[in-house]
Amino acid sequence: MPVHTYAVAWSEQGNLRLLDQTRLPGETRYLEIDSVEALAEAIGSLRVRGAPLIGIAAAMGLAAAAKGVLQRGGSLDREWLAAAVAKLQSTRPTAVNLGWALSRMRAAFERAWGEGKRGAEMVDALREEGQRIWDEDAAMCEAIGRAGEGLVPPGATVLTHCNTGFLATGGIGTAFGVIYTAHRAGKGIDVVVTETRPLGQGARLTAFELVRAGIPGRVIVDSAAAALMAAGEIDLVIVGADRVAANGDVANKIGTYALAVLARAHDIPFYVAAPRSSIDLQARSGDDIPIERRPAGEIANAAGVEVYNPAFDVTPAELVTALVTDRGVAERPNADSIRALLEE
Amino acid sequence: MPVHTYAVAWSEQGNLRLLDQTRLPGETRYLEIDSVEALAEAIGSLRVRGAPLIGIAAAMGLAAAAKGVLQRGGSLDREWLAAAVAKLQSTRPTAVNLGWALSRMRAAFERAWGEGKRGAEMVDALREEGQRIWDEDAAMCEAIGRAGEGLVPPGATVLTHCNTGFLATGGIGTAFGVIYTAHRAGKGIDVVVTETRPLGQGARLTAFELVRAGIPGRVIVDSAAAALMAAGEIDLVIVGADRVAANGDVANKIGTYALAVLARAHDIPFYVAAPRSSIDLQARSGDDIPIERRPAGEIANAAGVEVYNPAFDVTPAELVTALVTDRGVAERPNADSIRALLEE
Repeated sequence: MPVHTYAVAWSEQGNLRLLDQTRLPGETRYLEIDSVEALAEAIGSLRVRGAPLIGIAAAMGLAAAAKGVLQRGGSLDREWLAAAVAKLQSTRPTAVNLGWALSRMRAAFERAWGEGKRGAEMVDALREEGQRIWDEDAAMCEAIGRAGEGLVPPGATVLTHCNTGFLATGGIGTAFGVIYTAHRAGKGIDVVVTETRPLGQGARLTAFELVRAGIPGRVIVDSAAAALMAAGEIDLVIVGADRVAANGDVANKIGTYALAVLARAHDIPFYVAAPRSSIDLQARSGDDIPIERRPAGEIANAAGVEVYNPAFDVTPAELVTALVTDRGVAERPNADSIRALLEE
Repeated sequence: MPVHTYAVAWSEQGNLRLLDQTRLPGETRYLEIDSVEALAEAIGSLRVRGAPLIGIAAAMGLAAAAKGVLQRGGSLDREWLAAAVAKLQSTRPTAVNLGWALSRMRAAFERAWGEGKRGAEMVDALREEGQRIWDEDAAMCEAIGRAGEGLVPPGATVLTHCNTGFLATGGIGTAFGVIYTAHRAGKGIDVVVTETRPLGQGARLTAFELVRAGIPGRVIVDSAAAALMAAGEIDLVIVGADRVAANGDVANKIGTYALAVLARAHDIPFYVAAPRSSIDLQARSGDDIPIERRPAGEIANAAGVEVYNPAFDVTPAELVTALVTDRGVAERPNADSIRALLEE
């Protein structure tokens, strides 16, 4: 099966088939979801994670839950929808993609309702919108992959950080999408992925993606990247982005900035891959992007010493060799080139 | 009690009182050791670790074991010594300090034997040599601390990596010795310590040292150091060294080189503290220092992907602002200044 059906899919019964990521990489276990309660539990317990994928799972899961309501003899009305959306939204209140996907599903419901659709017809309408949200994300990933593939030389060793592939999106991924596209093109690349402390998304999730995609890879501790660069073992770095400011500054997982500085010191290209939807023109620069501090408990055994645990850092645009988006590449990104990307 | 009696001490009964570091930081548990078997188990199971401290514990423990032999009605002869030394050496075959300390104890035994000392007199001779080895290391740490203290400005925030204090040496430590001396001088400093993956010596051991020494500190993941440097929160970096080459290149825990590059990029001084005994003139440069690769299992959950786990990296001398030794400081260390340090 194509890699992007690993994390979410429809089951034969029209339920949401969801990979339980909390069991990775030890166990590949799927959940069959046909109720709002099960969907909320899966999102709230991080069985599905990664900003784009959360939105997709919520949308598809809502359609599957609607089908479940009918099967159990219930009725699909506006009260049901409002309660379902409220319950799902409360699971990860700050997840932008979740709110955005639920808004689209609500609009699809209202449209169908206005057209007089009820029961099974309403389920079909919701299912179509869920599929559309998934398809759009998968297409966006493919576009990013195509846009960035030319940046990856044959035989390259690519360093990446955190998790950006089919466990985080509805397709082949953002940074991972570029890697996957270059691999699929037969370029014979291999990947070095950082462990990505404190939560280990690189060692747990990206390593799993590499295995499933058949891409040769190695896991290293975050602090070993510099030594590999010095040894000439890294040809390029590519990472995703949580948010890109109007001037090209990039907020991403803690450790991204370190890799950017180290890449520059070793004359290695540093690429950022993200959909245009991650560009936030309201943030003029990285200074306008708030950095979430995460719980101290994520770093174990600190002996009673204070823990400082920022989840993200900001990489200034001047360290970014190119920004790869679903609408092409901005080399040396700046306010002008980013505006041009959005206006195309 | 002074911090340097935490990790090793004599008990009231003349046994070796050894802090079980495998229980840190959760539990402060001491072992009373009076046999070669218990001593070998403690060293082999990493209950005591840190190159200098292993040698000290072996020397003091051998004297305590000799006392135990007498108490249990045994006799202290050359056969006993040879068997004891062989058993202890086999616990950590590559530990340089262990072999060195055991050689000194064997020489002390032979000297005493030649002087006709037997029984309790032999125990006293061994105990004196063990105490001497401990005292010398403690004095070396104090000398390093004194030499480096002037490099730490009042109120400084100091970044350090891995573990170099009283859990790794017989005294206040090397890099930690400089930090401790500046703290003791009332400079009002605070410390940021990296977690130090994969084994977590920073989060587990240095954090413990900071608490015990009363020095304010914070633990960060290794990859967060760059973001703190960019935010202007780090005034200097100081680390220890596993080995220093004749030209000033430094082999130390993986991640040290990354910190050196990042410090240079942010115009932050980068200091290395080590006794002169760590300078290896046989290694002309870092290229001559072999880098140990450690087991993949230290990085958990890598999903079947290969793990690349080098234990150390090499920092070129040109990134070292100064080398702090027990015989003073070499600024911008190079072959000439290092030879001068050794000849003084």
